[in-house]
Amino acid sequence: MARVVVDVMLKPEILDPQGQAVQRALPRLGFAGIADVRQGKRFELEVEGPVDEAALARIHEMAETFLANTVIEDFVVKVESEVPAEVQS
Amino acid sequence: MARVVVDVMLKPEILDPQGQAVQRALPRLGFAGIADVRQGKRFELEVEGPVDEAALARIHEMAETFLANTVIEDFVVKVESEVPAEVQS
Repeated sequence: MARVVVDVMLKPEILDPQGQAVQRALPRLGFAGIADVRQGKRFELEVEGPVDEAALARIHEMAETFLANTVIEDFVVKVESEVPAEVQS
Repeated sequence: MARVVVDVMLKPEILDPQGQAVQRALPRLGFAGIADVRQGKRFELEVEGPVDEAALARIHEMAETFLANTVIEDFVVKVESEVPAEVQS
């Protein structure tokens, strides 16, 4: 089994109030030097079987139709790692 | 300016109802072969100045005290990339 990660972030031109709230809170909490914060979602998918081109195409389609709202969000699909044997079901 | 990413995920032993909801919806939507889904948060920080060890230590502390709830969440800090010059303020 392999882990595939889908990162979903708001497009750069879309306002991100969550990220802004974090960024504005940082100086008050003593953390300076962070010019911008964007907050998004990270999905970790445990994929059964080989992560070949067909599987990645399917995951790409899944991300596009279901995990991300492509009107306002961008997404990136990454194969992260083979899951160690003891985690397999 | 450089981009540092903080990924915050629920610890493996903590139930993730959001991820479960996604995982259960997938077969209905025609996507089979996904054994598990975990959903977490991704923070993209634009850091002013060099991302040296001191800066990373500061970001690590920030993630630990503010971005993640370390009772139930794990986090990973990654230096992603130098931001291209035209994006700099």
